[in-house]
Amino acid sequence: MAHAAIQLEVLLEAELRGVPSHGLLRLDRVVQRILNGVADPHATGRLNWLSSGFLTVDGEKGLGPVVAVAALDALQHRAREVGVAIAGITNSNHLGMLGWYAERIAANGQYIIAMSTSEALVHPWGARKALIGTNPIAIGVPTEGRPFVMDTATSVVSMGEIHDHAHRQVSIPAHWAVDAEGKPTTDANEAKKGALAPFGGAKGYALGLAIELLVTSLAGAAIGTGVRGTLDATEVCNKGDVFIVIDGPSPNLTAYLDMIRHSEPAEGFESVLVPGDRARACRAHRLEHGVPVADEVWQRMLVLSEGGMAVKQHT
Amino acid sequence: MAHAAIQLEVLLEAELRGVPSHGLLRLDRVVQRILNGVADPHATGRLNWLSSGFLTVDGEKGLGPVVAVAALDALQHRAREVGVAIAGITNSNHLGMLGWYAERIAANGQYIIAMSTSEALVHPWGARKALIGTNPIAIGVPTEGRPFVMDTATSVVSMGEIHDHAHRQVSIPAHWAVDAEGKPTTDANEAKKGALAPFGGAKGYALGLAIELLVTSLAGAAIGTGVRGTLDATEVCNKGDVFIVIDGPSPNLTAYLDMIRHSEPAEGFESVLVPGDRARACRAHRLEHGVPVADEVWQRMLVLSEGGMAVKQHT
Repeated sequence: MAHAAIQLEVLLEAELRGVPSHGLLRLDRVVQRILNGVADPHATGRLNWLSSGFLTVDGEKGLGPVVAVAALDALQHRAREVGVAIAGITNSNHLGMLGWYAERIAANGQYIIAMSTSEALVHPWGARKALIGTNPIAIGVPTEGRPFVMDTATSVVSMGEIHDHAHRQVSIPAHWAVDAEGKPTTDANEAKKGALAPFGGAKGYALGLAIELLVTSLAGAAIGTGVRGTLDATEVCNKGDVFIVIDGPSPNLTAYLDMIRHSEPAEGFESVLVPGDRARACRAHRLEHGVPVADEVWQRMLVLSEGGMAVKQHT
Repeated sequence: MAHAAIQLEVLLEAELRGVPSHGLLRLDRVVQRILNGVADPHATGRLNWLSSGFLTVDGEKGLGPVVAVAALDALQHRAREVGVAIAGITNSNHLGMLGWYAERIAANGQYIIAMSTSEALVHPWGARKALIGTNPIAIGVPTEGRPFVMDTATSVVSMGEIHDHAHRQVSIPAHWAVDAEGKPTTDANEAKKGALAPFGGAKGYALGLAIELLVTSLAGAAIGTGVRGTLDATEVCNKGDVFIVIDGPSPNLTAYLDMIRHSEPAEGFESVLVPGDRARACRAHRLEHGVPVADEVWQRMLVLSEGGMAVKQHT
């Protein structure tokens, strides 16, 4: 029950913050993965300290958020003694929105750098085929006020965004993705068979690849096209996660961040935002006015909530 | 003398790798800063372990590379015991090319994440004025073969690139920079008075800002427009540097990296490169055939090497 609560909180927070690609849409797959035996709802992961600051975690096929929270609790405690602690996690399921973890740590007065790998969906800069995960990075920094949290995939957009455009029969910008032959395409259906572009060209490619190598090595996870189980319901998940938690001084950064917020916007912009501002405003609004949920997702929720039999049919 | 050798190696390696903006061009300013008393060639920095894994360094106005190497030596040693160690450095001068440090650590079998701040040259996404440093990040990963090293500023290009275009009276792409009024410009001379764009739009902005906050807080350095001494010859340098050194397993990543290198290039590309490949090829070529140096820079070298009295007194 506690595990279900953690898993659901991550998904619900994504809905509240306006990131439906990491929201309830994923619940169905989580349930299917449990039913298929590739996710174990009871596991919290086996924690093994290789040294006083380096933790390795065998996730024992546990739910991503459950294993991650157990690892982060250990890291937070250890960082208070050592100043810094790192965990490499594998054999654990999809984490959902990385920013949720970053906010959890930063709100508690510590710094975090969080990185994950995923199935290969992104092409190297100048290449045609997907060889690198969407490899998100989140950084949390405590401040006197609300913590600073940034969270971004290293692809231009998520594959979910491509699917959404395909679903709505809307074209995509040419720099988002390539088709199965590795040619830039504006057709979302062709892009689904191809690869996402790294964000920011060669620079974003370098960052995404660095995360692939760092996480794979430190977590003992699969690499590149060998990664499975982040998109399907049937394969054991072998991606990796790395968390670095730092216990350091926490100066007041609010004046600086407010200077950015109050600076004059460029033409075409209404205001200058600090990462996290939009999500926070969205969260406040939705808590008051409700959360729009896509019909298909809602129908699946109803089926899931009707209980096991209905669920089983879909496994 | 040993300090001069370290400082020069960083600059010469930048020349060999085809990054003249971080090469001998900077030597003149280093000498001027020594003569002006804002850089101390003798200092190696005061190292203070706040806990077993967290090092703070007061650079004592030392040369950036000298202080950084002293800190990294301590971190490498400590990471072997603790698994991970972090340093926050301030009151130290410009590091030069961050990738040099990443390669040093990764070649020695450890992982590194290196981040620095600089004077505010980059505008927040959707804003008009420079409020954030060019804040480079370098990541080094050991492999069985040559280590993987990525090193990138979080601006689209360096201000050096803008100056170079202005000097050659060549226009710049409209997405590189804004003018003093915050409007996109193709005139390099106008861009010099304005601000650089973050790379990759909102995502690169988020990363650059995260580095600004993380480094400023952990190093106890100045923030945003308060940063001085990375571009001038007269002010004490108050930017910050953060190094995270990790001692972990080191699997063989060469097969994966070679798969990327041998993948079919996209239209308009001759080959698919892994970050560091171009620099390595350039280095090999220049070691054999020599290094082209801009006339102006060479003339300054000759003046410096003639051993102006002023210079000799201080080395």
